[in-house]
Amino acid sequence: MSTVDLNSDLGEGFGQWTLDDSDALLEIVTSANVACGYHAGDATTMRRVTERCVERGVAIGAQVGYRDLPGFGRRFIDVDPHELTQDVLYQLGALDGFARVAGSRVRYLKPHGALYNAIVTHEAQAAAVVTAVLDYDRTLPVLGLPGSAWLRLAAEAGLTTVAESFADRAYTPEGALVSRRLPGAVLHDADEIAARCVAMASGRPVTDVDGGDLRLDPGSICVHGDTPGAVEIARRVRAALTDAGVQLAAFA
Amino acid sequence: MSTVDLNSDLGEGFGQWTLDDSDALLEIVTSANVACGYHAGDATTMRRVTERCVERGVAIGAQVGYRDLPGFGRRFIDVDPHELTQDVLYQLGALDGFARVAGSRVRYLKPHGALYNAIVTHEAQAAAVVTAVLDYDRTLPVLGLPGSAWLRLAAEAGLTTVAESFADRAYTPEGALVSRRLPGAVLHDADEIAARCVAMASGRPVTDVDGGDLRLDPGSICVHGDTPGAVEIARRVRAALTDAGVQLAAFA
Amino acid sequence: MSTVDLNSDLGEGFGQWTLDDSDALLEIVTSANVACGYHAGDATTMRRVTERCVERGVAIGAQVGYRDLPGFGRRFIDVDPHELTQDVLYQLGALDGFARVAGSRVRYLKPHGALYNAIVTHEAQAAAVVTAVLDYDRTLPVLGLPGSAWLRLAAEAGLTTVAESFADRAYTPEGALVSRRLPGAVLHDADEIAARCVAMASGRPVTDVDGGDLRLDPGSICVHGDTPGAVEIARRVRAALTDAGVQLAAFA
Amino acid sequence: MSTVDLNSDLGEGFGQWTLDDSDALLEIVTSANVACGYHAGDATTMRRVTERCVERGVAIGAQVGYRDLPGFGRRFIDVDPHELTQDVLYQLGALDGFARVAGSRVRYLKPHGALYNAIVTHEAQAAAVVTAVLDYDRTLPVLGLPGSAWLRLAAEAGLTTVAESFADRAYTPEGALVSRRLPGAVLHDADEIAARCVAMASGRPVTDVDGGDLRLDPGSICVHGDTPGAVEIARRVRAALTDAGVQLAAFA
Repeated sequence: MSTVDLNSDLGEGFGQWTLDDSDALLEIVTSANVACGYHAGDATTMRRVTERCVERGVAIGAQVGYRDLPGFGRRFIDVDPHELTQDVLYQLGALDGFARVAGSRVRYLKPHGALYNAIVTHEAQAAAVVTAVLDYDRTLPVLGLPGSAWLRLAAEAGLTTVAESFADRAYTPEGALVSRRLPGAVLHDADEIAARCVAMASGRPVTDVDGGDLRLDPGSICVHGDTPGAVEIARRVRAALTDAGVQLAAFA
Repeated sequence: MSTVDLNSDLGEGFGQWTLDDSDALLEIVTSANVACGYHAGDATTMRRVTERCVERGVAIGAQVGYRDLPGFGRRFIDVDPHELTQDVLYQLGALDGFARVAGSRVRYLKPHGALYNAIVTHEAQAAAVVTAVLDYDRTLPVLGLPGSAWLRLAAEAGLTTVAESFADRAYTPEGALVSRRLPGAVLHDADEIAARCVAMASGRPVTDVDGGDLRLDPGSICVHGDTPGAVEIARRVRAALTDAGVQLAAFA
Repeated sequence: MSTVDLNSDLGEGFGQWTLDDSDALLEIVTSANVACGYHAGDATTMRRVTERCVERGVAIGAQVGYRDLPGFGRRFIDVDPHELTQDVLYQLGALDGFARVAGSRVRYLKPHGALYNAIVTHEAQAAAVVTAVLDYDRTLPVLGLPGSAWLRLAAEAGLTTVAESFADRAYTPEGALVSRRLPGAVLHDADEIAARCVAMASGRPVTDVDGGDLRLDPGSICVHGDTPGAVEIARRVRAALTDAGVQLAAFA
Repeated sequence: MSTVDLNSDLGEGFGQWTLDDSDALLEIVTSANVACGYHAGDATTMRRVTERCVERGVAIGAQVGYRDLPGFGRRFIDVDPHELTQDVLYQLGALDGFARVAGSRVRYLKPHGALYNAIVTHEAQAAAVVTAVLDYDRTLPVLGLPGSAWLRLAAEAGLTTVAESFADRAYTPEGALVSRRLPGAVLHDADEIAARCVAMASGRPVTDVDGGDLRLDPGSICVHGDTPGAVEIARRVRAALTDAGVQLAAFA
């Protein structure tokens, strides 16, 4: 029987504003990428979400980003690598404090948004995030895109790396994500998405954008939750996995 | 032989801006109230300051404040107590992360500025800060004004409380601080300040604002470092204490 | 035939986050209290909303607040009055820039949230906001609660003051708002709310919380738009006023 | 007799923190690049600086930057061009409000830090800033680096462009700035700097980094003021220009 982890971004509100339906997602995922206050998230939300994670047995992950609330961490910032290391440590420490208070710990780290994208290729920033994890806790697994500088450097540094696939994204024959600027990059059909996730999790190939077979072997599948439709798709993915006998469990 | 702690606010810069001479202060004090990013401080400064604290054997304290960089935490904010608890936890966790990376831990907590002043009397906010410490680590001592709601509620909750005196402030016969709005509230003569600190630390009375004897029995003496003159006075205080045979040691 | 203004808060998103349905509200109101970036609002939202206001013939008002994005301007901040004047001017100038670019001007000013509530009684902060308007443009009308220090000081300084009533709030026999902490403070029945608005606008009394007659004579009626239900009620209020032959027109 | 403008960055503090000696600089320069709150600056500082500018007859310029207080606007941010236009308008409007209150207007615009550097080559961001000026006031001159995409696009759009030279920077034979990473990029000798400024302003060549003659024909010379030494150099530059019979006057 195969096992897979489902991860999603949670706690991405700020003050009066909410974005995702964190409560609904916590019924679906096994790992929660919790916003730490730099691109989204605030202390009160972090407290609530970490407590709910512990109640639900969901692993708490630090979703770290650039310091950019107005841009939601979605804009590349040319941060000095030494400062980026400290920015990551700040977020990690803050979330870990709440995780400890809730009776748990931060179990993994996943970069967010523009930082996630930048460190696919930006070696200096990728190394800066790796350094933060090494400084903080060498046993902390890190989540990211297979083939990224981020996961490569993390692995070379001795960190546990976990590759994720995206439930609702099209892939090239080489296993790269189809650019969002191209048609068909994002899948919308819930049944198709669910079926692909079952395939991914069962070691079977999915269909790439050219119609060929592509074997993804994700340690975790990322689902979204920032729209009502997205939550519904995530729910469908979970049900399909369970129905197919795939066991859902946090990797961390 | 008597022993006393010297504490000061440190790391109160923000990005490009600096305020205090943290390096100089770390040669003087035994406890550093490190800004945690809410009223001042940023990740890079926190990293550097916590490392220097460990190198110098200075105890790291969390100087927690209102979330108000533009106002430097010097303006009362009517924060909901539940949210204030989480705001304190966020700052505490972030600093503790850096302290751990530096090979230490946060050793105590001291509120900053308007929060410090508010919780002298504001019971709900005082209780909110106490709750944060209880949630985080019941063994963490807290620093504050003798007679404050803050220290009273902390003590009632079983926390270790440490009362501080101010090196450069005048006191009423009742042991309260003379309001800054009144003449003579702040002392400027380095010799006088140093002599008062020696008296305080040795269990001898100081002269109150009416000329009477006042016995303060501080667990810690607060010195300032946000001007070149202030650093020089702090240096004088340390020298005078040492010359008088008072041992300087962190309370935590 | 009587005339009344309908005002509502708009543009209260921030970056990725939205709060109100500004587009729907602009079909309903005659005056838009546009958030200026201190408690909510950002440059892109301000640009879009001011352009839509001009297209729809809706008067642009500066909704000024405390500098407190995490608290949405809903927490009293003990800002120094001189600094508060400058904070108001900053917001006013920023919004007026967008209003000019859109071919209009800021037509009035309305304080937001905790500032709105504070200056009902806080004379120094009320005077600080009055000073900002005097400094900026003495012909700018100001909107607020009848009987407040804010409107009294503004009138004494020669400003045009406009008193507003709330569509969905209960009133005491003296014409004060029933505290939100008391049951019945907020009305939820759309028909009742609409009928009260027609009465207010037509110079007829509404029923106070004790069942008596209360004559409010608002220059503007405030409707809300931060929930789908609120927008629907606002639409009902507008329809009822129009059906009753009340003319809707901006006061400014 | 020749005439030149001296410009400098001013008002680059934030809240409790100061950076430059704005009062000293206002005795030296003819144009003040006033920080508008995005990378530095706050409402109270903007009020004070604009008033001092008017008292001293110094032209008020909008020094606009990325929204990045923690990074002081010195880090490239990949802001969407449409949003960048609005960010510039926001800053421009806010400063213009204070300029109007002080009895003047914003007289020109100069980008700051990483934005200044980015739009030397980043066409989309350069165009976004040009669009903001066109939207706000087509008669507003813009200041920048000769040969930059910024000045080229501004000129093509019909704006008045003013090229600046730097008092304390070495130039290549082609008239480009020597990279700060190379030795000799920044000049430190006050006499040499002053002599070069006199040459620049008098239409005479300066010596480039290879020892050749280079004719710069600046509409404005930029001096710095963020250290005591820098203010002293700026004072020397002004004295040397005056002694050489060069008239100092704002270009705007």
